[in-house]
Amino acid sequence: MNIVFIGSGNVATHLAIAFKAMGADIIQVWSRDSRNAEILAAITKATPVKCWDSLDQTADCYVIAVKDDAIAEVASHLQDVRGVVVHTSGATEMDVLKGTGTGYGVLYPLQTFSKTKVVDLKSVPFCIEADRSETFEKIAAMAHLLSESVAEVNSEQRRILHLAAVFACNFTNHLYDLSSKLLQQHQLKFDLLKPLILETAFKVQHTQPAEVQTGPAVRNDLLTLEKHLDLLEGSPHLQDIYQLLSDSIKKTHL
Amino acid sequence: MNIVFIGSGNVATHLAIAFKAMGADIIQVWSRDSRNAEILAAITKATPVKCWDSLDQTADCYVIAVKDDAIAEVASHLQDVRGVVVHTSGATEMDVLKGTGTGYGVLYPLQTFSKTKVVDLKSVPFCIEADRSETFEKIAAMAHLLSESVAEVNSEQRRILHLAAVFACNFTNHLYDLSSKLLQQHQLKFDLLKPLILETAFKVQHTQPAEVQTGPAVRNDLLTLEKHLDLLEGSPHLQDIYQLLSDSIKKTHL
Repeated sequence: MNIVFIGSGNVATHLAIAFKAMGADIIQVWSRDSRNAEILAAITKATPVKCWDSLDQTADCYVIAVKDDAIAEVASHLQDVRGVVVHTSGATEMDVLKGTGTGYGVLYPLQTFSKTKVVDLKSVPFCIEADRSETFEKIAAMAHLLSESVAEVNSEQRRILHLAAVFACNFTNHLYDLSSKLLQQHQLKFDLLKPLILETAFKVQHTQPAEVQTGPAVRNDLLTLEKHLDLLEGSPHLQDIYQLLSDSIKKTHL
Repeated sequence: MNIVFIGSGNVATHLAIAFKAMGADIIQVWSRDSRNAEILAAITKATPVKCWDSLDQTADCYVIAVKDDAIAEVASHLQDVRGVVVHTSGATEMDVLKGTGTGYGVLYPLQTFSKTKVVDLKSVPFCIEADRSETFEKIAAMAHLLSESVAEVNSEQRRILHLAAVFACNFTNHLYDLSSKLLQQHQLKFDLLKPLILETAFKVQHTQPAEVQTGPAVRNDLLTLEKHLDLLEGSPHLQDIYQLLSDSIKKTHL
């Protein structure tokens, strides 16, 4: 299988390397950022491309992994290619690709990728959508090359998944950050919280989060809630977050 | 070493079983809830106790693992015991134990315990405080039986740690819960988010959370932020949380 990658950021890098490892040929890497394209092309033995005229029109698949607001523009250059065109975005509807390739769809890996950290894709859910069943089969076969978890998810569901991921991943990481800074202010090491953070994530792998909710809010321990708000007196911003999330826990559980 | 446990909840259960496994003798388990006391006593081959008059006065250590607001009352019954008295609370100052035993202090395991799940205590930070250095050595020796991570933490720092743990654990779990319910409303499985949740927790084991912050807020992707708020239109409560945490991410990063 021949694949052209459009984009050379975190998602493009992880997917291109993984496809290459599974025996696919990455024939070209297109990127606005020619330096990134060259790096990813070097790793995957592909040709870096900067100009749309040089794009190979005959690949089996074109994987668009660029910023959401650049997808439509990129798609306008893929009207005549003779392969399947997919984007990898959680928040962008499939139909932005209408008219491209010989079929189009979405290949959305539900994971957070950093350039510096290898992610085992085998357990990453790949959410797939396609213009028609023939294309779906092709995209699903590609996804199964990388992962054991492949699910059909339409554009509306994908939007919800992406939103839910903001709560479960982006906001969660920000809470880690706030707690880390709170400790730092008091000469305490963030290391102390790391086992707790891991255990909290482990727990919900086999139990519904609501069943393992702990802390002062779910116990309606008003004295501790008040003490905590007092401790945050110099940080009205943290007080607001503490109050809102504690109220939300109470609303859910009490 | 002989230990008496006061309390039979999650923390008491995990600690008593772990001490027993390391060769300590759990001689009594006191609990208001005699049924729980009987269960824990049976597991650890201890005697269940309900009445203060029956309390063995000669144990090496008395571990108080009851609700925060019950610690002071429990302590009033431990004035004359001939051993070290510790409580295990993150939010309670050490001096509530003043006058008890032949020395007193705190043995606070920074972890979230559920009855149904075994936790490997080896990596759990045990935060220790004591009335004097002799007591400190005794409590530290006990902690080292269970864990490789033992830290001296005074009452004020412990309060901050406990507060930081609310952000990093309790609030985080609640965000998992909110995302789980959002998916459920749209016939999507929470399973899809589980690898992402794990990876988010793994990432900060070796990297500062601020360095791996992802999502629309940190990119200042106003279009996606607006779309997400629209998607939450029927849930003003979730909109508030989304807005506040996104603003907080922007405030931190932009």
